[in-house]
Amino acid sequence: MPRGRYHPHRNTNAIPPMAVYTEVPDEELARFAGRYPLGALLSCKGIAEGVENSNFLLHTERGHYILTLYERRVERADLPFFLGLMEHLAARELTCPLPVHDHSGEALGELCGRPAAIFTFLEGMSVRRPRVGHCAALGQALATMHAAGRDFPLRRANALSVGQWRALAEAAGPAADAVAPNLAVALADHLAVLERCWPRDLPAGVIHADLFPDNVFFLGERLSGLIDFYFACNDLLAYDLAVCLNAWCFEPDAAFNVTKGRALIAAYHAVRPLTAGEIAALPLLARGAAMRFLLTRLVDWLAVRPGALVQPKDPVEYWKKLRFHADARSTAAYGWEP
Amino acid sequence: MPRGRYHPHRNTNAIPPMAVYTEVPDEELARFAGRYPLGALLSCKGIAEGVENSNFLLHTERGHYILTLYERRVERADLPFFLGLMEHLAARELTCPLPVHDHSGEALGELCGRPAAIFTFLEGMSVRRPRVGHCAALGQALATMHAAGRDFPLRRANALSVGQWRALAEAAGPAADAVAPNLAVALADHLAVLERCWPRDLPAGVIHADLFPDNVFFLGERLSGLIDFYFACNDLLAYDLAVCLNAWCFEPDAAFNVTKGRALIAAYHAVRPLTAGEIAALPLLARGAAMRFLLTRLVDWLAVRPGALVQPKDPVEYWKKLRFHADARSTAAYGWEP
Repeated sequence: MPRGRYHPHRNTNAIPPMAVYTEVPDEELARFAGRYPLGALLSCKGIAEGVENSNFLLHTERGHYILTLYERRVERADLPFFLGLMEHLAARELTCPLPVHDHSGEALGELCGRPAAIFTFLEGMSVRRPRVGHCAALGQALATMHAAGRDFPLRRANALSVGQWRALAEAAGPAADAVAPNLAVALADHLAVLERCWPRDLPAGVIHADLFPDNVFFLGERLSGLIDFYFACNDLLAYDLAVCLNAWCFEPDAAFNVTKGRALIAAYHAVRPLTAGEIAALPLLARGAAMRFLLTRLVDWLAVRPGALVQPKDPVEYWKKLRFHADARSTAAYGWEP
Repeated sequence: MPRGRYHPHRNTNAIPPMAVYTEVPDEELARFAGRYPLGALLSCKGIAEGVENSNFLLHTERGHYILTLYERRVERADLPFFLGLMEHLAARELTCPLPVHDHSGEALGELCGRPAAIFTFLEGMSVRRPRVGHCAALGQALATMHAAGRDFPLRRANALSVGQWRALAEAAGPAADAVAPNLAVALADHLAVLERCWPRDLPAGVIHADLFPDNVFFLGERLSGLIDFYFACNDLLAYDLAVCLNAWCFEPDAAFNVTKGRALIAAYHAVRPLTAGEIAALPLLARGAAMRFLLTRLVDWLAVRPGALVQPKDPVEYWKKLRFHADARSTAAYGWEP
């Protein structure tokens, strides 16, 4: 039967990049949504956004909202920090999802046995291949966020900073060599440098810590908002810029694009001038940021069972980036000098 | 490190019910959407709806739309039938997604190497546990669809009708016994009856063929639309009602709810009166409909590799339903008599 034949689901070929992890029964959803001042519910679609949580796009009589169910990777105790930060930033100059309070004033509820919250909907789309204009807009928004976060009263330690990297490298162990030749030993060498030289006295505050292109919305080249604050924490502000240098300024062939680097750093510096100490430390911070994403990707890569449906991100990309930063002697390598 | 510890993705525990199979780069999306009279694109979210295709919710200056990319389970040659049917029905009394035509008048385009189409957005939500009122609304909509489809000029054979079941049963083979004791032999017996007695002379026309609760939207108890016409075909009209009896009127404990059955059949009959032949054949058609879903679930179930992320639906549910219909002597078993 060549046509109209029944094809069983082929689980190996389709790689869903993201998924909804929890199905919400309609009665439970109606009960939950009824606690918020949103009017009647008109539609609810599970959306593929954010690998950590289940997200639904709600349409109600009042407008469009995002419902987020927090799955196991987000610690319940951290939620007041994340939700409070979004409220704090949205009340200042930064566009980000704003938690909606229910009739009793609570932003955090529970649905299907999980912590859950409803947020305002943010227009815009993430860009897969950021151009120079996007990098400049990002730099400005990042510095604006750092300034807006200055008086945020809650604190959360960075759970994936220099102090945690060695444990991750040990979790990967010698198996890392399957990803790149002699990677395990090379990682240990870089780790020793990072641990010894990591700066302690640079300006610190609330950072996003995961500001990849997925998490920044644009309408054309105008930045329309930031999302996904679930790695946000207190750490060195320039480290956040270092994460962005890694995530936004390399081309697909692993070459660093100095035009993008210059645009990102200059736009940041124009809003919050970098100190001399931050400028000097930037290559080391960028090497550290590459190490952080290399290590978590490595652990995910090695943890995956053969034939699994979800393919983790390739750690090699960040190993190349790490080596680029290790060779950088100053911010001149990023196309920018003070 | 009890808190803030890094958790690798655990692929075995999370069971995403549905997923987006194709990632659409923003530049390609903008180019594609620019061919349609929708105004500027404001947002695009992958949504978890429909296991067969990738779907995206688009917000543009003109409103909300669904973008569908047809993955491999939908035959390209069938798309004119499916899209044409939706246009045909939407132009009559039935609410369903309406394909949007591009500037050159085409409803079917191509995106990321796949056939793609944009549809109007339908408000409403599917119900997980239909109540009696939902079943009545469904019966009315199904009969309305059958009437509206009467003058649809295209034809598509049912690729999963009685003529194809034996091949599916053979694909499952003796492995079926792992699902229920002696299932393989029992299936062969039922198949012989179905093949011998399947009616050929009942009213035929365009049927939905997959009108499960997922594919019917409600606002409260008001039915707001039907979706997912990708199994639609020409076949016996009463077979479509038989599919719905299976999908809507059994309780989670496998008991048939005669109040729901009566509501469904009576509402259907009020719009398109069933003939004496259809009424007499309904238990056999319902047994056949149970066989069709039992067989495809069985093949999916046996095809899945251990530890796969996507868990197929349990075939046992439809084996119980099949036996219920085999014992039914008339529509009285469904709570309805002419």
